[in-house]
Amino acid sequence: MITGKNYIGNQRYATGSKTYKTFNPQLNIENEYIFYEATSEEINEAISLASNAFKTFRNISRLKKATFLNAIADEILVLDDELIQTYCLETGLPEGRAKGERGRTVGQLRSFAELVSEGSWVEAAIDTAEPDRAPIPKPDVRKMMIPLGPVVVFGACNFPLAYSTAGGDTAAALAAGCPVIVKSHPMHAGTGELVSQAIIKAAQKTGMPNGVFSNLNSSGIEVGVQLVQHPNVKAVGFTGSIKGGRALYNLASKREVPIPVFAEMGSVNPVVILPEALKERGESLAKTYAGSITLGSGQFCTNPGLLLGIKSESLDSFISTLSDEIVKIQPTCMIHPNIIGAYESNKANAIAQPQLSVVADYDNDVQSNYGRQAITTVEGKTFLENTTLHQEVFGPYSLVVQCEDANQLEAIISKLEGQLTGTIIAESDEASNYTKVIAALQNRVGRIIYNGVPTGVEVCPAMVHGGPYPASTDSRFTAVGIHSIKRWVRPFSYQDWPNNLLPEELKNENPLGISRTINGKQTTNKI
Amino acid sequence: MITGKNYIGNQRYATGSKTYKTFNPQLNIENEYIFYEATSEEINEAISLASNAFKTFRNISRLKKATFLNAIADEILVLDDELIQTYCLETGLPEGRAKGERGRTVGQLRSFAELVSEGSWVEAAIDTAEPDRAPIPKPDVRKMMIPLGPVVVFGACNFPLAYSTAGGDTAAALAAGCPVIVKSHPMHAGTGELVSQAIIKAAQKTGMPNGVFSNLNSSGIEVGVQLVQHPNVKAVGFTGSIKGGRALYNLASKREVPIPVFAEMGSVNPVVILPEALKERGESLAKTYAGSITLGSGQFCTNPGLLLGIKSESLDSFISTLSDEIVKIQPTCMIHPNIIGAYESNKANAIAQPQLSVVADYDNDVQSNYGRQAITTVEGKTFLENTTLHQEVFGPYSLVVQCEDANQLEAIISKLEGQLTGTIIAESDEASNYTKVIAALQNRVGRIIYNGVPTGVEVCPAMVHGGPYPASTDSRFTAVGIHSIKRWVRPFSYQDWPNNLLPEELKNENPLGISRTINGKQTTNKI
Repeated sequence: MITGKNYIGNQRYATGSKTYKTFNPQLNIENEYIFYEATSEEINEAISLASNAFKTFRNISRLKKATFLNAIADEILVLDDELIQTYCLETGLPEGRAKGERGRTVGQLRSFAELVSEGSWVEAAIDTAEPDRAPIPKPDVRKMMIPLGPVVVFGACNFPLAYSTAGGDTAAALAAGCPVIVKSHPMHAGTGELVSQAIIKAAQKTGMPNGVFSNLNSSGIEVGVQLVQHPNVKAVGFTGSIKGGRALYNLASKREVPIPVFAEMGSVNPVVILPEALKERGESLAKTYAGSITLGSGQFCTNPGLLLGIKSESLDSFISTLSDEIVKIQPTCMIHPNIIGAYESNKANAIAQPQLSVVADYDNDVQSNYGRQAITTVEGKTFLENTTLHQEVFGPYSLVVQCEDANQLEAIISKLEGQLTGTIIAESDEASNYTKVIAALQNRVGRIIYNGVPTGVEVCPAMVHGGPYPASTDSRFTAVGIHSIKRWVRPFSYQDWPNNLLPEELKNENPLGISRTINGKQTTNKI
Repeated sequence: MITGKNYIGNQRYATGSKTYKTFNPQLNIENEYIFYEATSEEINEAISLASNAFKTFRNISRLKKATFLNAIADEILVLDDELIQTYCLETGLPEGRAKGERGRTVGQLRSFAELVSEGSWVEAAIDTAEPDRAPIPKPDVRKMMIPLGPVVVFGACNFPLAYSTAGGDTAAALAAGCPVIVKSHPMHAGTGELVSQAIIKAAQKTGMPNGVFSNLNSSGIEVGVQLVQHPNVKAVGFTGSIKGGRALYNLASKREVPIPVFAEMGSVNPVVILPEALKERGESLAKTYAGSITLGSGQFCTNPGLLLGIKSESLDSFISTLSDEIVKIQPTCMIHPNIIGAYESNKANAIAQPQLSVVADYDNDVQSNYGRQAITTVEGKTFLENTTLHQEVFGPYSLVVQCEDANQLEAIISKLEGQLTGTIIAESDEASNYTKVIAALQNRVGRIIYNGVPTGVEVCPAMVHGGPYPASTDSRFTAVGIHSIKRWVRPFSYQDWPNNLLPEELKNENPLGISRTINGKQTTNKI
């Protein structure tokens, strides 16, 4: 049941007077639930509980932590139809997408449960003492990762489950041993509340400390600002716009004690289609990309918003086929009137740029809030000179840039902002003739794809979802996969510490049987 | 030979008109060499060369990189007496210290050479494809660490070799594959120039690209500001004051594209002496700490500036012995008149605080620039209320806080700023009665020491030299040990990339024989 309240540890509060509703974009009406914006006192209470919970949660056994994470996954599944229906009501996305995203969310939680239950993720390193070393004895030094403290997670508009309440940021932070306070995304506050219920139920069932999780409603920026500025908040996770992410980054870096903000933000995900590939399979590529650009109404962080080719007849045919194919696709509902509003205005702004041609623009009648796809094209020179064309148009839109030659292609890539992904489409052996283009692309992105589409983000240890700014605020971390836990931990050394007082991970006996680096060698041996 | 010029790649420039000299604090006179402050054009040239060098240096083979790092170590040793003498002339530190620090510097370079030559440090992870997976095929995804780009390193005043020109930051950045531009520390610009000669000789002998290293002279803040603000600089390493480190952090975070700054800054390195230990061996502890507080005239980042005990007769005796012992020690020369000036003024400011008692203050005649040690003491309550007393007094000074009880001790620790180290002095079994005190200390520091002194920082994989702000600007990294390389690299994924185009580290055949995570298992196997 959706109450609209704030979940502050194990209590629910609705003491504020500011309320808001979510929106059903399919029906173009407000949903019935009323949400109570968190008050300043409620925010402080959530942080105070989280700080207190951290004292025990940071030391909770790996198996208990794994049980907690798995219990969250279980409780999310128990929500069943209520969750799926609320998700659809609040986003206009189809049931299949809701279920797929739920599967991803549950899978992420379970993969973190597995990681912490195995235990080697703490990167234990032990250098044993050499009391007789000259001129000075070598001490015994032992290192492992420990949690930073309470983490604030901002729910993402475009992924109500996988990148929101119990999404990747939350799962990684809890796995690290950090309590989490979620700033719920106002567009799907009901979905967020249901997932919060699941987390709190799981926390209570598995004996976690009160305050290990809180969920705060908010339709404006005030709640987020107060959270990020609070001295007891130790890190921030965010997925969303460059404007939003940068604002949080700025707030955090101006604090008396700055804290890390991992914000995953904008990306146009450039796709380079090399000449031979264009010639050999331009038509099928055009069809594939018509699908990728409109997938989920273009509301993926990894949507291909920029296609780069070298001028040729094949490129002309590709553009023509892409244009023909994309207008055949039935538009779909975008998540919220604000999202489609921003899409329409950003698209209009792009289209209004000089020397740009619109080659496809869906113009049949569609329902309110359905995103009309468009394809535009410009010359390489125009693109190089006008950085407005480099900006993301979040939605089913892509710009095809027609480069003079490989040098211009490389120059354009080098001028791009940081990106989540880059894609190279090539015939066999073709890529090896474009090493400079590929090197330039690698320098701008977090992940590079060969002969595929960027829109799928596999959850696996080798995945990097991040990249140079503004794809993320810190390219040294990933938002997806088990290594995303590294955002919320710090290394900590014990020197000459008595064995009986060391954490299990660092004891001589290696009671957890984890893999450790002992005097430079990776081993599961005892000392 | 010292020329006073800027080393910009393989060229030397002295085009500016602003010059400065270094100072001999032992003789209290200026040294003869004249250094030419880098001009804006010289700075831009160094960055331009570094960006260009990055294109090849990032892909240089691991063995070549290791040869380069070892060659730097060799060339530093070739400098022999000239280096040691210049070091002593510019710092007033004794020859033994100069040689010890040279050993540490050479050792760090060789340990990074070993790291990159072995190769597993790139944390290669491979998730192989599952083309038949339903509902969608699983792609092949392969990840490894790649370098960020040109790194600017600020030389530290207190470690002319180990934390400066070819110190830990530089060695780690070069090992990562990042070109380095050093902003030379003006107090030991001659030492810096000699080491720069060694680096550039090594670069030329081993065929590194021009611009892989530059060294810029600077006596003010302008050169550093221009470097940190330049769009082609990708990260910054700094060791020094909170004021200096924070200023660089602020500049970097206000850039259009923010970059990571790892600044290792201030720390008072609290030492908690538990009651039984005070009772059993207060006298010997007092002698040990008199030595640790005055070691190197207190000019270590890890100098114990704060001693915490619980009120008792034993604490009184400890304070009395510490006071007696510390004034027996002959003061030594501090690095520069500015350093001793700051020490005297910070000490005077601390001593002027209300309700503080000076229990030892060396007052015999000493040479100019010799640091006079002092010990002060306050009640726990006074310390809690006056955060001026929490600030570092860089030099041979320590404050003893007399706490009412264990609760007040814990409260005081919880109120401290972030620290590089914390130390617990305890009799056997005593520490287990102070778990809250230890937990509070762990939460404030990067390294915790049992029954020792914090002043030694062993260079080993398990070492953490860093900690919560302001010990460092990002507690998720260490400045010492091989893992300090993580500051200068980012993870990068290849998706469905052809085997022949993959870097060696990720190829099926595992030609380098490195340890990799393949489908979740750590192995050196081929695929």
